[in-house]
This record gives sequence, structure tokens and C-alpha cells, in this order.
Amino acid sequence: MSDQRPSGLGREADRAAVLAANRAFYDAFEARDLDAMSDLWAHDERVICVHPGWTELRGWGAVASSWAALFGGPQHLQFIVTDEHVVLAGDVAWVSCDENLLAGDGSATVASLNLFARDDAGAWKMLAHHGAPVMAGPGDDES
Amino acid sequence: MSDQRPSGLGREADRAAVLAANRAFYDAFEARDLDAMSDLWAHDERVICVHPGWTELRGWGAVASSWAALFGGPQHLQFIVTDEHVVLAGDVAWVSCDENLLAGDGSATVASLNLFARDDAGAWKMLAHHGAPVMAGPGDDES
Repeated sequence: MSDQRPSGLGREADRAAVLAANRAFYDAFEARDLDAMSDLWAHDERVICVHPGWTELRGWGAVASSWAALFGGPQHLQFIVTDEHVVLAGDVAWVSCDENLLAGDGSATVASLNLFARDDAGAWKMLAHHGAPVMAGPGDDES
Repeated sequence: MSDQRPSGLGREADRAAVLAANRAFYDAFEARDLDAMSDLWAHDERVICVHPGWTELRGWGAVASSWAALFGGPQHLQFIVTDEHVVLAGDVAWVSCDENLLAGDGSATVASLNLFARDDAGAWKMLAHHGAPVMAGPGDDES
């Protein structure tokens, strides 16, 4: 792709800002903080969210409603987020990571892809959260 | 984000090119065509792939091996891809879609996010394929 990369220092600052946005997402999730969650996202029709096992939600209205439903529900989750990898591409960046979830009734791993774009004010806003439950290791068939 | 958008016509051409790349991905998958699949992807350490239920694969070597294993396996899949939505952001674009899978032993739906970046030659190369099996509808808890 054409090189939109800033110099080394700017690039490190971008990477740190994207990682901070990613961590703020999990902090808001654990705290069931709807205001903090709302602040993290772009509020437009581009946003998509796949909660593990759910169908895809599209547009900020549907995504916001899902957070309200989750945070109003009975389940309190704790996340141990591991293996975070950031890719920067101009004003877009994404983080892939493993969510190691601890809930009342057990644990699970979710492979997540979180996508951010820099807004006009320079803030990295979430455009996509895509959570895929890990059920088996490589070697099984896709289906 | 800062406005990197081309004019209307260029934008429509980009959208069409990204959709074509997304469809070429499913064509290569159905045809079990490793050369075509290889041509679609960026060949570097940024690429990630989550086959539904699998742990995340990172880097072209691991991703390429997974396609070789899948295409060498017994399962022939057919895809009916629906609800494709494209977001363009400069030299990055992503497509969210539903993969409606038909295999010998039944059917399944996978919510997928496919991420592309334009390379120096102007081709849209796949950087991420993230497949999340759909197991329940909105209203269930995340876990």
C-alpha cells in the first residue's frame, strides 16, 4: 500500500494510542460503563460489532443497544487480554488479540479483531469489534 | 478520520474493486485453488486469519499453511455470501458479510470481516480474514 507512515517516533506514538484505545475498550466492558463504551466508538453507520456467537450488528444504533443489553444483563465478565498485535495503516489501525474470559460459570477464549480510525480531532475511534469464539485448534476443517 | 476519499467516481471504482477482491476470495475458497488464494493475500507478517472456531493465525506462512491443509482435506464447501458491506478508508477497506455455508453434513452461518489494503501497484490485497461462527441471536449474553 502507499506509504502513509509517519516517522519512527510518530509511529510509536500512534501504536501506543491504539493500544490504549483497545485497553480502554476492555476496561469499559469489564466496568459495564456505557458512557465510556459510547465514547470509544465512532457514532455512524460504518460501525459493526460481532459479539461471539451473535449475528453481526451494523450501525451505531444497533451496536449501542447491544452494549446496553449486555451491561443490563446478569453476566459480569473479566478479561485477560493477551497477544495484542497492532497494525497501523495511515489513519486506520487494527488490533488482534485473544480475550481470555472469566465468567461465573467457566472460562472461554475469543479471538478478536478490533478496528479503529483516527477522527478529525486525532482520536482513535472504534469502527469494528469482531469476536470469534475459539472452539478448536488448527487442523480441524473450516465450517 | 481525515478525508482521504477520492471523488465519487474513484470511490465507486474502489468499492467495486474491493467487492471483486472479496468475491475472488470465496471463489478461490470454493475452488480449493491455492494459487488464486495466495495471489489474493499480502505476503507479510501483518496478515491474520481466523477460521471459524480456530485460534488466530498470524503471518503469511501460518496462513498459507492453513489454506494448504484445508484444501487438502476432505471437506468441500459452498458459500452463499450475503449482506456484503464495504467501508473504504483511504488505502484500507473492509468487507463485512455473512457466509452461508453448505457442506456435506449440513449448513452454518459465519459472520466474516475481511480486510484489504491497496498495494503499491494498486491491487487490493487481503490482510485479514476473521470468521466468527453464528450460534445465537442478539439477546444472549456475550461469552
